[in-house]
Amino acid sequence: MRNSRRSQVDPFIVMDVMEAARAAEEAGRDIIHMEVGQPGTAAPEGARQALARLMQDDAMGYTVALGLPALRKRIARLYGDWYDVDLDWNRVIVTPGSSGAFLLAFTALFDAGDRIGIGEPGYPSYRQIVKALDLVPVGLQASPDHRLQPVPADFAGMDLQGLMVASPANPSGTMLDKPAMQALVEACQASDTAFISDEIYHGIEYEAKAVTALEVTDDCYVINSFSKYFSMTGWRIGWMVVPEDHVRVIERLAQNMFICPSHASQVAALAAMDCGEELEANMAVYRENRRLMLEGLPKAGFDKIAPPDGAFYVYADVSDLTDDSRAFAAEILEKAGVAVTPGLDFDPVRGAGTLRFSYARATADIVEGLKRLERFMAARR
Amino acid sequence: MRNSRRSQVDPFIVMDVMEAARAAEEAGRDIIHMEVGQPGTAAPEGARQALARLMQDDAMGYTVALGLPALRKRIARLYGDWYDVDLDWNRVIVTPGSSGAFLLAFTALFDAGDRIGIGEPGYPSYRQIVKALDLVPVGLQASPDHRLQPVPADFAGMDLQGLMVASPANPSGTMLDKPAMQALVEACQASDTAFISDEIYHGIEYEAKAVTALEVTDDCYVINSFSKYFSMTGWRIGWMVVPEDHVRVIERLAQNMFICPSHASQVAALAAMDCGEELEANMAVYRENRRLMLEGLPKAGFDKIAPPDGAFYVYADVSDLTDDSRAFAAEILEKAGVAVTPGLDFDPVRGAGTLRFSYARATADIVEGLKRLERFMAARR
Repeated sequence: MRNSRRSQVDPFIVMDVMEAARAAEEAGRDIIHMEVGQPGTAAPEGARQALARLMQDDAMGYTVALGLPALRKRIARLYGDWYDVDLDWNRVIVTPGSSGAFLLAFTALFDAGDRIGIGEPGYPSYRQIVKALDLVPVGLQASPDHRLQPVPADFAGMDLQGLMVASPANPSGTMLDKPAMQALVEACQASDTAFISDEIYHGIEYEAKAVTALEVTDDCYVINSFSKYFSMTGWRIGWMVVPEDHVRVIERLAQNMFICPSHASQVAALAAMDCGEELEANMAVYRENRRLMLEGLPKAGFDKIAPPDGAFYVYADVSDLTDDSRAFAAEILEKAGVAVTPGLDFDPVRGAGTLRFSYARATADIVEGLKRLERFMAARR
Repeated sequence: MRNSRRSQVDPFIVMDVMEAARAAEEAGRDIIHMEVGQPGTAAPEGARQALARLMQDDAMGYTVALGLPALRKRIARLYGDWYDVDLDWNRVIVTPGSSGAFLLAFTALFDAGDRIGIGEPGYPSYRQIVKALDLVPVGLQASPDHRLQPVPADFAGMDLQGLMVASPANPSGTMLDKPAMQALVEACQASDTAFISDEIYHGIEYEAKAVTALEVTDDCYVINSFSKYFSMTGWRIGWMVVPEDHVRVIERLAQNMFICPSHASQVAALAAMDCGEELEANMAVYRENRRLMLEGLPKAGFDKIAPPDGAFYVYADVSDLTDDSRAFAAEILEKAGVAVTPGLDFDPVRGAGTLRFSYARATADIVEGLKRLERFMAARR
């Protein structure tokens, strides 16, 4: 049977690592997982309890397409609490994960052939979703001088219809501060380029509070999720904030493309937002893990790293150690028993010389992983 | 900010009815809901219990993109149980509802500008999702002589890249028998037209077992869901069966577009498949409701109906009563206190003369609704 051209998306290179790690574990080896991009913790207890209760006496059918009003209102309140931004809850749209938000945003904003600028290194699915929707991804090679975040000069004169940024970014963990965000927003507005801000790692930040694009402009799409800070990856629940005059368009698209996000996940997410204590305990773990990583990785010999502002990744320049990050990751898995992600997933141009280390899991794993990396590197010299 | 052309999807006309019904209820009126397309029942008890248990001691992070292998295997077994079809579980893909399956299928199969034939009357979101993906919906006016199901002559020489059928269909409830399915499949194969079979109402059938396209060919996409027979609309969980050589393409698309379906919903769905007793109790209700409708609607004066083979709708030709089904539905709501769906959502051409009555809810509601419809029609004469 026929297949479309647009379905020919690139494989995730990390999948090879994960499959090799799985095979190694099946063969009895102990593997430390520094490749995974998700918390090891469950959804907060209060979230699970709220769902267990409601399941007993509610049919839990479809919700309205934009999500439960109580959840949309609670999310709007978060913008007051976190950023002192007064947000009309009618602009908040609950989505099936940030994945669903990307599909809605790109469909609402762009037609086939439109060009979308994407900072590289970046989350690989941006590029693939863009391609799957018959749009053209335009990779913007972000400079280490700008902490791997795009600046207006990176896309000047490029005729982009959209720009996708992420702060804190995956894989680098670096953030856009307010002036940097402002400069990007202004450059986009001057060229009728839609500005989309992925804020999925907000809440997981270490030195300063992350800046939301909504502090700078209302004329943007902001995408977020319950996956990371709220520790709910498997629940596939996220949200999006859009300009007021885009809400009706998104509503119609969402009615047809998704009907609604999972009712169960919406109920759990609403309760998760009041589980501050448990979530801050998770943060304490990330903070300690980060400290260990920033100490242990250079000690092991991975010394070309920038301290991440947020998220739970360290992105290392290993170009003096290899010109094939894929083979290098395979070697680290084989010899050190540590799974890491080759940079090629995030940056097809320079990723052959980079690795991403995740510190989302338990601290004991981080301690053991760093020990193994140190031994491995010492033996390699 | 810019909006795309493809985001300009049509509104659901039934939304006006639902909003008017909501307002009437807020004002204290009692409304019988024959407009809704979902069971009034919750997910089976066993499904909710399984989830409640697992939530206690599993982090429930991302699953693999194609879904939990145990669920894929269990779904494959259903094809043996229901149709005596021996299905390789590797061809089963768990999706975020049938909505997610449509997005994956259309993206995997078609490029911008491709033409997709859709039988009319039909589920309105087919047309809207097709448009949102920059494809061209081609409405095929199905004949009452073929019980409102398309036949090869309806699209002969039309240069379609895809054909979308549904059996049992929404809104008509009619089914394609094996020869009818076979004829469509052969016509599609002869013209390199991808054949997509929506089987979401399978299990809800009254006189004969519904035929799956997989009884006729492996060279097709079959889409199904836990929403209807398994009574899990709000859980957004469905599945798709694709040709063996399409699995890898779908896997990569799903990894990027969705990451995975909701872990919680997958766990609940797996358990739901072993809740036969509760599901058959639901079926007994639908059967009784259908009997009441087939008796009561003609008595009230809605006598141009065909007995539905499956699903929980009766589609009535009301062209001798009105040429504006939207206004007629509003009148029925206002005067009879019964919410029904104007046919325009399902058939933009002939839908001004049709109505859809749903009998998915409790039998007491059906009895009362029919009484009101009879009174209303008597007063109108």
